Amino acid sequence: MENEPRFEVVPVGWVESPLTERAQAPRQGDEGAPPAWLAFEAAVAEAIRDIRPGTEVLVLTWLDRARRDVLVTRPRDDPDRPPLGVFSTRSPDRPNPIGLHRVQVVAVEGSRILVHGLEAIDGTPLVDVKPVLGGVAER
Amino acid sequence: MENEPRFEVVPVGWVESPLTERAQAPRQGDEGAPPAWLAFEAAVAEAIRDIRPGTEVLVLTWLDRARRDVLVTRPRDDPDRPPLGVFSTRSPDRPNPIGLHRVQVVAVEGSRILVHGLEAIDGTPLVDVKPVLGGVAER
Repeated sequence: MENEPRFEVVPVGWVESPLTERAQAPRQGDEGAPPAWLAFEAAVAEAIRDIRPGTEVLVLTWLDRARRDVLVTRPRDDPDRPPLGVFSTRSPDRPNPIGLHRVQVVAVEGSRILVHGLEAIDGTPLVDVKPVLGGVAER
Repeated sequence: MENEPRFEVVPVGWVESPLTERAQAPRQGDEGAPPAWLAFEAAVAEAIRDIRPGTEVLVLTWLDRARRDVLVTRPRDDPDRPPLGVFSTRSPDRPNPIGLHRVQVVAVEGSRILVHGLEAIDGTPLVDVKPVLGGVAER
């Protein structure tokens, strides 16, 4: 892949969480993650202006402590499970370490959003936020 | 955001689709997208080795024709809808134009995967594939 194009991800904000080590973080956000703040850059304040408390959103992060050279891994580090190609796992270790997190919005204060259910650790760069899509009729 | 770190996305493959123009593409994959191939780089063949026909997966793309300077947009280009911050929409135009697509795997042939329900246009870079997460008990 040496001659392929590259694309540049620019962080739009940062996770603020009591989780500071990857080993502390739950495997998924619905497995005991503490409340966390999404602290957005002032430059993207307009992009978050319609996010409301009580809704669920998808948060995309850049898992900057992950390994990008891992293609096969053992799910949940469980020695009783067979290894799997990383595209069949949610492991942070993968060629482009983008985290995908479904979280609940609890509060919005200026350019900061308090969420429940985010397992990313403190300082993780924020890449994008998307609404959870309902059925076709709701769009 | 001038002094912030940047991260580099390396395409892991490319979309092959009869859709060649953004104006042709349906708004979402379940609104009439034709079958498409995910053509992966040989270097990541191990990462896809456990993807099976009949399953649903999440595909992440880099929407390289999108505008990155748009923060507010009108959903579905509908003049009867109020403009929304892009983080409350699935518009391709957003600071980091990552597409998130839930698709059905129809066939796997070597490093190529045939999927239904992908609205991305021909030549769109592939960034990642993730399993759809079931309930906690299934993980």
